[in-house]
Amino acid sequence: MNDVAKEKELEEVFSDYGSGSVGLAQINTIVGDIEYNSKKVLKYINHAQNIGLDLVIFPELTLTGYPVGDAILRYPLLADTNVKWLNEIAKLTTKTVALVGFLEPANDKNNKFYSSVAVLGEGKVLNVIRKSFVDKNYEFNDCKYIISSDNSDISTINVNGIRYAVSVGDDYLCENKFSGQNFDIIINCSASVTYTKKEQCKFGRLSALSQKYSAPLIYVNQVGAVDNASFAGLSAVFDKEGKLFARAKAFDEQFLIVNPSKNLGKIYPLIRGLELTSEDDGKFSLDYEPDMERTYNILIQGIKDYFGKTGFERAVLGLSGGLDSTVCAVLLTDALGKENVFGVSMPSKITSDTSKNDAQMLAQNLGIGFTQAPIKEMFDTTNNCLQELFADVEQNWDCRYKKSFTPDNIQARSRAMFLWGVSNEFDSCLPIATSDKSEAYMGYATINGDMSGGFAPIADVTKTKLFALARWMNENRPQKNAIPQSVIEKRPGAELAINPETGKPLIAEDALMPYEFLDEVIWRIENKHQSYDDMLNSEFLYEKSHKVIENKHQSYDDMLNSEFLYEKSHKVTPEQKQQWLEKFYRRMGTALYKKSIMPPYVIVDSPSYNFSQPITSGRINYKNESEETIRAKLQRIF
Amino acid sequence: MNDVAKEKELEEVFSDYGSGSVGLAQINTIVGDIEYNSKKVLKYINHAQNIGLDLVIFPELTLTGYPVGDAILRYPLLADTNVKWLNEIAKLTTKTVALVGFLEPANDKNNKFYSSVAVLGEGKVLNVIRKSFVDKNYEFNDCKYIISSDNSDISTINVNGIRYAVSVGDDYLCENKFSGQNFDIIINCSASVTYTKKEQCKFGRLSALSQKYSAPLIYVNQVGAVDNASFAGLSAVFDKEGKLFARAKAFDEQFLIVNPSKNLGKIYPLIRGLELTSEDDGKFSLDYEPDMERTYNILIQGIKDYFGKTGFERAVLGLSGGLDSTVCAVLLTDALGKENVFGVSMPSKITSDTSKNDAQMLAQNLGIGFTQAPIKEMFDTTNNCLQELFADVEQNWDCRYKKSFTPDNIQARSRAMFLWGVSNEFDSCLPIATSDKSEAYMGYATINGDMSGGFAPIADVTKTKLFALARWMNENRPQKNAIPQSVIEKRPGAELAINPETGKPLIAEDALMPYEFLDEVIWRIENKHQSYDDMLNSEFLYEKSHKVIENKHQSYDDMLNSEFLYEKSHKVTPEQKQQWLEKFYRRMGTALYKKSIMPPYVIVDSPSYNFSQPITSGRINYKNESEETIRAKLQRIF
Repeated sequence: MNDVAKEKELEEVFSDYGSGSVGLAQINTIVGDIEYNSKKVLKYINHAQNIGLDLVIFPELTLTGYPVGDAILRYPLLADTNVKWLNEIAKLTTKTVALVGFLEPANDKNNKFYSSVAVLGEGKVLNVIRKSFVDKNYEFNDCKYIISSDNSDISTINVNGIRYAVSVGDDYLCENKFSGQNFDIIINCSASVTYTKKEQCKFGRLSALSQKYSAPLIYVNQVGAVDNASFAGLSAVFDKEGKLFARAKAFDEQFLIVNPSKNLGKIYPLIRGLELTSEDDGKFSLDYEPDMERTYNILIQGIKDYFGKTGFERAVLGLSGGLDSTVCAVLLTDALGKENVFGVSMPSKITSDTSKNDAQMLAQNLGIGFTQAPIKEMFDTTNNCLQELFADVEQNWDCRYKKSFTPDNIQARSRAMFLWGVSNEFDSCLPIATSDKSEAYMGYATINGDMSGGFAPIADVTKTKLFALARWMNENRPQKNAIPQSVIEKRPGAELAINPETGKPLIAEDALMPYEFLDEVIWRIENKHQSYDDMLNSEFLYEKSHKVIENKHQSYDDMLNSEFLYEKSHKVTPEQKQQWLEKFYRRMGTALYKKSIMPPYVIVDSPSYNFSQPITSGRINYKNESEETIRAKLQRIF
Repeated sequence: MNDVAKEKELEEVFSDYGSGSVGLAQINTIVGDIEYNSKKVLKYINHAQNIGLDLVIFPELTLTGYPVGDAILRYPLLADTNVKWLNEIAKLTTKTVALVGFLEPANDKNNKFYSSVAVLGEGKVLNVIRKSFVDKNYEFNDCKYIISSDNSDISTINVNGIRYAVSVGDDYLCENKFSGQNFDIIINCSASVTYTKKEQCKFGRLSALSQKYSAPLIYVNQVGAVDNASFAGLSAVFDKEGKLFARAKAFDEQFLIVNPSKNLGKIYPLIRGLELTSEDDGKFSLDYEPDMERTYNILIQGIKDYFGKTGFERAVLGLSGGLDSTVCAVLLTDALGKENVFGVSMPSKITSDTSKNDAQMLAQNLGIGFTQAPIKEMFDTTNNCLQELFADVEQNWDCRYKKSFTPDNIQARSRAMFLWGVSNEFDSCLPIATSDKSEAYMGYATINGDMSGGFAPIADVTKTKLFALARWMNENRPQKNAIPQSVIEKRPGAELAINPETGKPLIAEDALMPYEFLDEVIWRIENKHQSYDDMLNSEFLYEKSHKVIENKHQSYDDMLNSEFLYEKSHKVTPEQKQQWLEKFYRRMGTALYKKSIMPPYVIVDSPSYNFSQPITSGRINYKNESEETIRAKLQRIF
C-alpha cells in the first residue's frame, strides 16, 4: 500500500511502443472501498493518457473489488456508488480508452447484477460489455447475485483502427462466441483466484484460444489477497500463434505496457511453483522444494493484505522455539517489517533450555522485538482456582476425568491471554495464531490457546511442508540461516505435557502419528478425494524407501553435500496403518468445530481445505461396509 | 434421541384409517450417519407394515441427512454407502410401499448426484424418481453436487390402485410438470429449512397446487437442526380443494397417519409464530410476543440437536446475573435437563450484589448446579504479569493506549478460562458463549471471553427480543417466574468497567446506543436491506410514541393490569441519529472478524444474519455520495 513506491514503479515500466500500445493495469483493490479503487484506477488511466497509450485495461469488477459476497445485500448502495464513480472517471478519460470492470445493476431485477466492463473514452462511457458466462463459482457464490447477459456473440470495440473482442472472466471458455466475429485482438478481463498448479492450465487455455482465432490475446488479472483467497496477477499477452510474449509479475501490483500488434512486451520471471501443471500432481511427495517460492510468496501477500486491508500494522506472537511459531515469525517479519513484529517467549517448567534459547536467537537474528514472560504464576493461579472450582462442580457432576488435558490447556491459554493483552494495549496490533494444517486437521490445538489469534498465517501449510519452508527460507532469504538449525532438527511437540513413558516432553507424533504419514493422508483427501479404504490399500511414501529430507538430525547442507541422500523405509503393519487412519478420521470429525472458529488464514495448498461440512456430521461413516454387515445390522432392528 | 419415548409416541398416533392409509415419517436424521438414519427408516417402515399402511413417505435425502455439504467430496463412499443401505432396506419392505429419499450417484458424472426418492416394495427397489428442479440454494450450495433430472413430466406410481405423483423438494413449484399427467394424489418429499414467516407462504403454495389439479397433496418434511439450520417438520396434507386436513407437530419427530382419499387425519396445533406470513413483516415492532413460542422452540431444538448430534450432554456457563446468561441458562435447562447444566457465578470487584444474588436465585429456581468462583486472583495475577509484559513491549513499540480495554477483557477471559477448564475436566461438557445478536453486530463481546464457547445459543436473538423472551418464559414455562424480576428490569451492562461520568458500572447502551434503536437498525438491514440513507430518512419506532414493553421498572403483569400501557417517545436529533448510525456501520465493519470466529449458533430470525462478507471489506462505503463530491475527490488525483 506504499503509494510513492508504487508510482515510482509505474514510471519504470513505461515504454514507448508506439501506436497500438496497451497498458495492463494489474491492480490490487480493496473490496467495497470504491473510492480507494476508483482513485487507483484513475491514477493508472492518467499515466496511460500521459504517455499516449491507445488502451488501458483493468481486471474484472475492479471498482467494487472481487469477491464482494453478501456485501451486495448488506450495502444496497454499493452498485449505484460504483456506477457514480465510473461516470466521473469517464469524464476524465479523454485521450486513452479504458476498460474498467464494474458491477452493473440489472434494472429489471432486484439484487441482480451483471459483471460488466465499461469502455471509457472521449470523456464518456462509450459502451458496456456484460459477462455472458457466469460459472457456478461456488466458492464465492457468484451466481447468487451475478447474472449472465444473453449476448450470443462476443462484443467488439474499435480503438484507433484495431478491433478488440472483449471477454469478461470465464467468457473466454465459450469459444463459440468468438466464431464469425471480426476482431484483431482478444481481451480477457479477469479476477481469477490462484491455487496450486492452476496457472499453467489457465495459460494453456488462453494460448489455445489465441491460436484458434489467430489473434493476439491480452489477459488482465487482479492481484492481492481477499481474506483467504489469493490472486496471483500474472497478467499476460499471447501472440497470434499462442506464444507468450509478455507477462506481469506474480503477487505484485504492476502496470505492464505491451504492443500486441508488434509483439512488444516484457516477460517477468515466473515465481517457481507457478509453472507446475496439474499433470504433476499424480503422487504425494515430501520434496516440497519446487513449490517453496510460490508458497512463500502467497503467504507473504496474504499476511500483507490481511493486515493492510483491515488497517492493522503490527503483530505479536508467542515464540516457543518450535517450528510453527518460528516460521510465522519469519513470515511476519518479511511481510510487515521487523519493527512491526514482537515475539514473546512464554516458558513453563516443561520448556527446555534449547527452546528458550532458540526463541531468543531467532528474535535476535530477525531483529524483532523480544521479551520473556514466564507463565508460572498464571499457571499456578489458574490451576489453584480451577481445582477449587472442579471440587465444587464434582459435587453435582460425575465423570470427572482421571487424567485430563486441563493443565496442558491452561498453559496454552495463559499464553494467548498475554498476547491478546498486548493486542488490547498497543495500537494496530494483532496476535497471531500459529496452528499449522496438520494439527488443525487433527484438532491438535488449544481453543483460546495456540489456535486463537487475529490471523493464522500457516493454517493451510502442513508440518512436513513447514520444515521444507524453514529450510528454504534459511537458504533463500537475503539473511541466511535466520532460523536456528535446532528448530529444524528437533521433533515437534507442544511442550505442554510430559510423556509418562519417556519422562520427556510429549512429542506430537506420539500422540498423533508420524507427520510424513499424516500429511500424505491430508494430501490424498484433498487432492485425490480418496476414501479410508483407498488409503488402506495404497502404499504410502512413508512405507517406501525414499530420500529423507525431514526430521533428521542432518542439515540441508549436510544432505546436499552427502554423496547420496539417506534412504529409509518404515515398516508399517496393516494394523498400525488402520489404527492411524482410524485415528485420523475420528479426530478429523471431532475437529470440525475447531475448524469453524479458526481465525482467518491464507489458502496455500488446496481449495479443499476450505470445505464446509456440518459440525453435527462428525459421526459420518468413512468405512466401506459389506452388504452382509449391513443386512445383519438391519435384521436386528427388523 | 430417546428411542423408547419416540417409539411410545409412534404407537400413540397409529390409527386405522383403512385402505389408502399413508404414513408421513417426519424424522430427524444425522447428516452422514447413514446407519443411524437407515435404522430409523426401517423402524418406521416396520411400524407401517405392522399396521398395514399402503404407503410410508420419508423426507428428501433421508438416508444421508440434509444438508450434506462438502462432506460429499471428503467422504467419497457416502453415496455408495447410502445405496447399499437402501438396497438392504428394500429387501425388508414387502407389505407396504416406502418412499425413501437418498443420494443417487450420477454414474456418467464425477461427484455429481441426483436427489432421488426410491420406491421400495415387494422386497426390492421398484422405481427411482429424481428431483428435476434443483434451485440455486446458495445457503447449502446444493447445485455444487446435485444435478437436475431431465424429466419433463412428474413421475407417478400406482399403489393399490391409487396413482401418486411424486415430487422432490422444489419440484412442486414447477406446476407445468403436472399438466396432462394422470394422478389421484400429489406427494412432495422435502427438506425445507424454516425461517421467520416462511411456513404459511409454503403452505399457501402447496395448497394452491392441490387446488389447481383437484388432487390431495401430501407434504413430508424433515425435522431437527443441522448446526445453525432448523427444520420445523410440519408435514401436512391438503384435500383436493386445497384445504388442510392433517398436519404434524412442529419441532418434533412424528409419524402422522392419514388417509388422503377419505380426508382422514389429525391437525396438531401450530406453534405460535409459525402462522405469521411474510405480509406481516412491513414494520419493525418491539412487540415480540406473537413470535415467542416459535423462537423458544427453535432455540430448544437447536440446542438439543447440536448437543445430541455431536455427542455432548452437559453445559457449563457463567451466570452474571445479566439478561444474556440468564436466558441461556433457562434454555439450556429446558433443552438438556437441569442435571446437565452448571452455572458459575464469577464476580469481580465491579459485580454488584444484585447481580450475584440474581445469579444464585436463578440457579436455585432452575435447580441447576451452581457455585461461585471469584476472579479476583486471576485478575490480579494476569494484570500484574501483563503490566510487566507491557513495560517490555513499550521499549520497542509506541502507541500504547492511554486508556485500554485490557482490564475489561482480562475479566471476560478469566471467566472463559474457568468455563473451558470445566469443559476440559468433565466428560461430555461444552462451555456456553452467551453473546447476543445486538452485541455480535457491534463486536461488543470479548474474544476468548464471553463470545467463546462450544455453542452460542442466542447469537441470533437481539437484546430487545431477549427481554421479551425472558418475560415470555416467566409466564409460559411450567415453572413460573424462574427468572428474577430484577434481571428483566435492569439496563444491560457487562459490569466490566466503571463509567467515569457516573461512577457506576458502564451501561452497554452508553457505549453503543439504545437497544431499541440498535435492534431496529439490524432489522432494517436484514429484512429490508436498507441503506444508511434510507435509515437516516426514516422515522424509527424509538422516536415514535409507542407502548413501552422494554427496559422499564415495570413488570409484564404490572403493564397488563394497567389500564393502558405507558406511552413514550424519544426526541432524537438528526445529528444524534447520524452519530448512532455511523457508529453502527463502523462497528459492524470491524466486527466481521469476530463474526467469523463465532461459535455455532441457531439461526432464529433471518438468514441474512448468516451473510458472508470478506473481513477485508470492512471499510466498505455505506454513505450516499453526490456526484459533485466524487468529482472533487477525483479531480484532486487528476
